[in-house]
Amino acid sequence: MSAPSEVPAEINRNNPEAEIAVRAEAYRNWGRWGEADVLGTLNFIDKRKRVEAAALVTEGAVISLSQAFDTDGPQKGWRRRTNPVHTMTDTGTDAERGNQGFPHGIGGADDVISMPLQCSTQWDGLGHIFDHGFAWNGRRAGDVVTSEGDLVTGIEHAVSAIVTRGVLLDIGRHLSSESGELPDGYAISAAELDACAAEQGVKITPGDIVLIRTGRLSRARREGWGDYAGGPSAGLSLTTAGWIHRTEIAAIATDTWGFEVRPNEFDVPSFQPLHQVVIPNIGLTVGEMWDLDSLAVSCAERRRWDFMLSAPPLAITGAVGSPINPVAIF
Amino acid sequence: MSAPSEVPAEINRNNPEAEIAVRAEAYRNWGRWGEADVLGTLNFIDKRKRVEAAALVTEGAVISLSQAFDTDGPQKGWRRRTNPVHTMTDTGTDAERGNQGFPHGIGGADDVISMPLQCSTQWDGLGHIFDHGFAWNGRRAGDVVTSEGDLVTGIEHAVSAIVTRGVLLDIGRHLSSESGELPDGYAISAAELDACAAEQGVKITPGDIVLIRTGRLSRARREGWGDYAGGPSAGLSLTTAGWIHRTEIAAIATDTWGFEVRPNEFDVPSFQPLHQVVIPNIGLTVGEMWDLDSLAVSCAERRRWDFMLSAPPLAITGAVGSPINPVAIF
Amino acid sequence: MSAPSEVPAEINRNNPEAEIAVRAEAYRNWGRWGEADVLGTLNFIDKRKRVEAAALVTEGAVISLSQAFDTDGPQKGWRRRTNPVHTMTDTGTDAERGNQGFPHGIGGADDVISMPLQCSTQWDGLGHIFDHGFAWNGRRAGDVVTSEGDLVTGIEHAVSAIVTRGVLLDIGRHLSSESGELPDGYAISAAELDACAAEQGVKITPGDIVLIRTGRLSRARREGWGDYAGGPSAGLSLTTAGWIHRTEIAAIATDTWGFEVRPNEFDVPSFQPLHQVVIPNIGLTVGEMWDLDSLAVSCAERRRWDFMLSAPPLAITGAVGSPINPVAIF
Amino acid sequence: MSAPSEVPAEINRNNPEAEIAVRAEAYRNWGRWGEADVLGTLNFIDKRKRVEAAALVTEGAVISLSQAFDTDGPQKGWRRRTNPVHTMTDTGTDAERGNQGFPHGIGGADDVISMPLQCSTQWDGLGHIFDHGFAWNGRRAGDVVTSEGDLVTGIEHAVSAIVTRGVLLDIGRHLSSESGELPDGYAISAAELDACAAEQGVKITPGDIVLIRTGRLSRARREGWGDYAGGPSAGLSLTTAGWIHRTEIAAIATDTWGFEVRPNEFDVPSFQPLHQVVIPNIGLTVGEMWDLDSLAVSCAERRRWDFMLSAPPLAITGAVGSPINPVAIF
Repeated sequence: MSAPSEVPAEINRNNPEAEIAVRAEAYRNWGRWGEADVLGTLNFIDKRKRVEAAALVTEGAVISLSQAFDTDGPQKGWRRRTNPVHTMTDTGTDAERGNQGFPHGIGGADDVISMPLQCSTQWDGLGHIFDHGFAWNGRRAGDVVTSEGDLVTGIEHAVSAIVTRGVLLDIGRHLSSESGELPDGYAISAAELDACAAEQGVKITPGDIVLIRTGRLSRARREGWGDYAGGPSAGLSLTTAGWIHRTEIAAIATDTWGFEVRPNEFDVPSFQPLHQVVIPNIGLTVGEMWDLDSLAVSCAERRRWDFMLSAPPLAITGAVGSPINPVAIF
Repeated sequence: MSAPSEVPAEINRNNPEAEIAVRAEAYRNWGRWGEADVLGTLNFIDKRKRVEAAALVTEGAVISLSQAFDTDGPQKGWRRRTNPVHTMTDTGTDAERGNQGFPHGIGGADDVISMPLQCSTQWDGLGHIFDHGFAWNGRRAGDVVTSEGDLVTGIEHAVSAIVTRGVLLDIGRHLSSESGELPDGYAISAAELDACAAEQGVKITPGDIVLIRTGRLSRARREGWGDYAGGPSAGLSLTTAGWIHRTEIAAIATDTWGFEVRPNEFDVPSFQPLHQVVIPNIGLTVGEMWDLDSLAVSCAERRRWDFMLSAPPLAITGAVGSPINPVAIF
Repeated sequence: MSAPSEVPAEINRNNPEAEIAVRAEAYRNWGRWGEADVLGTLNFIDKRKRVEAAALVTEGAVISLSQAFDTDGPQKGWRRRTNPVHTMTDTGTDAERGNQGFPHGIGGADDVISMPLQCSTQWDGLGHIFDHGFAWNGRRAGDVVTSEGDLVTGIEHAVSAIVTRGVLLDIGRHLSSESGELPDGYAISAAELDACAAEQGVKITPGDIVLIRTGRLSRARREGWGDYAGGPSAGLSLTTAGWIHRTEIAAIATDTWGFEVRPNEFDVPSFQPLHQVVIPNIGLTVGEMWDLDSLAVSCAERRRWDFMLSAPPLAITGAVGSPINPVAIF
Repeated sequence: MSAPSEVPAEINRNNPEAEIAVRAEAYRNWGRWGEADVLGTLNFIDKRKRVEAAALVTEGAVISLSQAFDTDGPQKGWRRRTNPVHTMTDTGTDAERGNQGFPHGIGGADDVISMPLQCSTQWDGLGHIFDHGFAWNGRRAGDVVTSEGDLVTGIEHAVSAIVTRGVLLDIGRHLSSESGELPDGYAISAAELDACAAEQGVKITPGDIVLIRTGRLSRARREGWGDYAGGPSAGLSLTTAGWIHRTEIAAIATDTWGFEVRPNEFDVPSFQPLHQVVIPNIGLTVGEMWDLDSLAVSCAERRRWDFMLSAPPLAITGAVGSPINPVAIF
């Protein structure tokens, strides 16, 4: 078998099953880190890598890569994904009025949140996607994620893992230097990822977390959310699976809803084929809905595209994802 | 007026109003960072401090300081604080059975969480506590936190702030070298904080985040949660407010429910007097329910008590607190 | 002072303050049922009334007046009102696969819901609306509804109250006999309510609950939700406050989002002026988003417009409203 | 095969599988109301029955049979069942202070609830329990209840069904005339149900909903919740399955957490065996955690044990249960 094509135009747009299968097989990492593995490509982050990442901190500047978590978000209810609902159980108004019954003038405010773990800036964990009933490392999906949550690869296993070198590839700027925004449906290729890195003068090395900016969020900010959640967008081509596998990156994240190009690259019904290859087969942790706009400006100003990245998930037992506030530290 | 006493035994246990007021007045930082300030003592973290913190990363080891977020937590419903409820909107069991209606063998799992922002490892933001109807920086509580959330000092303002040097003071080990656990009701004094730092050979400097281990969580792990949430515990004495102010630390966190000693140091009705001084008056961000046990073991083994600390809150608009996964990086 | 006009065209469209105030004063029921009252006009339902209502049950037919509670609802996030989110904590898929760990072949499914109490078919309780800081019966709003809920007039007080005679006034059919639907912005007048009752041959008597069908829901069903929640709609004119007061009805409900006409009847900024008169001043319990379509068909077929109505709220302590499943029994 | 024993003492306490299977087979109603049935024994309620029920309304008195829905409830987190969490999104305190931004003096309060559908007074729907992977009417459990909810027998199908004659059997009073409370672990037999009805002078007829009072809730009210949720309690013996089948009752409800006796009647691991027989096999809708105490007092005073019962579920699409406020009308 020859290696799967890495040219988007060579995809057989009528056969998602085959196009997915050939890449799943070619790039599958099952067993690579042992039968009991729960981290997948996060294993590429080693201690040496973190020391290298910390050495990138020369200014002491921090840039949050999180969108705002509130009701003014992109979600519209698809698969019960709503925007977060934040409510108060105590308020300053009550405290000021003396309604709270506390002694000696103390008052308090407390709050509650209800949200899908996939509602805004997030990690997709290894239990988020399955391939023909199989989860990461070849486990049966029904042995891994039941109604009680992810019993095996829950996001809590990654709480101490995700601190490493981050690299921004600003593809929006690379390909659309004027607007910095790619058109909807634009499938980013492996060759373009390499060209962007070369233009920026940055080298991707194993254990990096690569952040891909398409400009989709910039447009949503300007024009309103519209179909940001689930609608058309630039994103990675299915054919980048080989690049993702070959570079031995630890994780990837984009400023879009779904990381891969939308609509997907098929003329027959299909849904997120690159997810199907990279999460259960490669073992990749995937970030979505990151805000890479300020970061892009900073990187361009600094002419520097790598930084320390700290993006540990919340320790939610059995979660298949986590809301996060990733920070780039320069 | 003489400076407030820093000796716990000198507190007038019948007059919380006066004991609080004298410290609120003595240590109040209102206006220190301008009228518009929304960060309080987090302002003590400057860029130089972060470069210094990153230089502490010599091994590349990461230790999560988060407790698990699940229903097996300490909360018992007080003021509607419950443990987090995590539910699945899609599962691997459904995917494996082919119940999801997706094409080409892709399957997915999604999830939802409902939780108080104060339910587990967390930051208390500046809008969490009021003093006689006033919030941080002298604002009226009812102008700051309404039913719509914290309109002024919401935790989202701190998303890029909380990366700095962390220092562990293992008071449990310092005072109870055998068990490493302080007895309930033990009020830690400023002198003991200094003695612990001296014994550990570590110096607290402005902009540090100080982590105080009492051993309370170790006991809860061994004996069950019991009254971990709101019940008796060792913690900081009200008299440490001066130390907190003088050291110019950026934030503080403990392994207990409420950071200060419980029961509080009065013989008449009282409730969290140190909160009343430090949050609205000093402008201190306070961490609670952190897991400092693994960190303590690591620090003791390394004979090193400082590290890079990355603990940015989630970007929840208008929140008075945030669940977090703080990481110590060595 | 002359009685407030009951003719919509006579409203001064530039002076909502005055138009509201004159009606609030004219129709105010404060003190009518004593200082401690928590039921308002529900007091008009007496035991004799319920016996009369039960006597209307001659066929044994039941018609639910509830819309579906699910994510395919009208809410779009205004004031954090979302559609209900229903998730499973156990499923049949898990049970069938043997994932649940129960003995002897038993399996189970459980579920959870998160929803605004105002998200779908509902009662607005007496604590839902205030007039210049005053709640029902002249209480200070801040003494009644704090962050802890409605401490005085919570919906739990009505759990045994709301069983009575119901009367449908199908104004949609009365005024638009062909389509059965009123145009958006149509302000229904007191005279039209009387004319509709007369045409239907039904008499409104004290203690009745009157259901007003505008046809707005029929249109939403046909055309999609659009702006059903908060957008333009037919509804009651502010000038019907007198009719509501005079008839001594126990409660009222409509098939619209907001019961009164939208946009409201003013050319300057205004918001739900009829609510401001009827809830805190008259003490009226108001139903919204009821499904009156099947009922209307049945009533027309039977040429009978009254029935037994059972619509008790859930016993949610301190709630200012409740999701309900009202049933009409013939 | 002889009929299963209806004597509790004759249960083989070491063989739950066999004791359940013999009753499941003997009493199974699969197909009785056609292949497409979604109502089970609720089909026993016919129109004539409802007319008969309405004729019982001679006084116009209503008694709510609901417990309070708030955080002071029995749930302790088992299988993520928590007490309801009710929070405000707007308050009277804010309205009074003028914080809400509305015109002409109107103010409002809104609220949100998050709760398991099984947290308090409730119906268990037909999708709540499975027998060896099969749901009501012989369907595969995984075809009926997925992560998306009950796709076939969701509680929404019963929204117009549950209005009928109710009969209270106050077994607590019948067997423990002094306290009115049965001891924990007391297994109520079919013979005792008949004897109680006879003593009360009431006759159970097809389509009735039978309410069984054990006194368990009275004790929880007096002594605190303790292990009300899931702990020891009087309740129906597994051997009453025949009585339930034979009497053709439409539904049953009790004042306990789990309707059947706890601990269950076996010396080997077992869990809710009567559920396993009656829900998926008989097609019975089961009510739990009803408050029957006021009703019991009223019935005793009236010497009348039947009444009109209106207890329709909320129209939650795909729910396997529903919180309810059942009302008895005399």
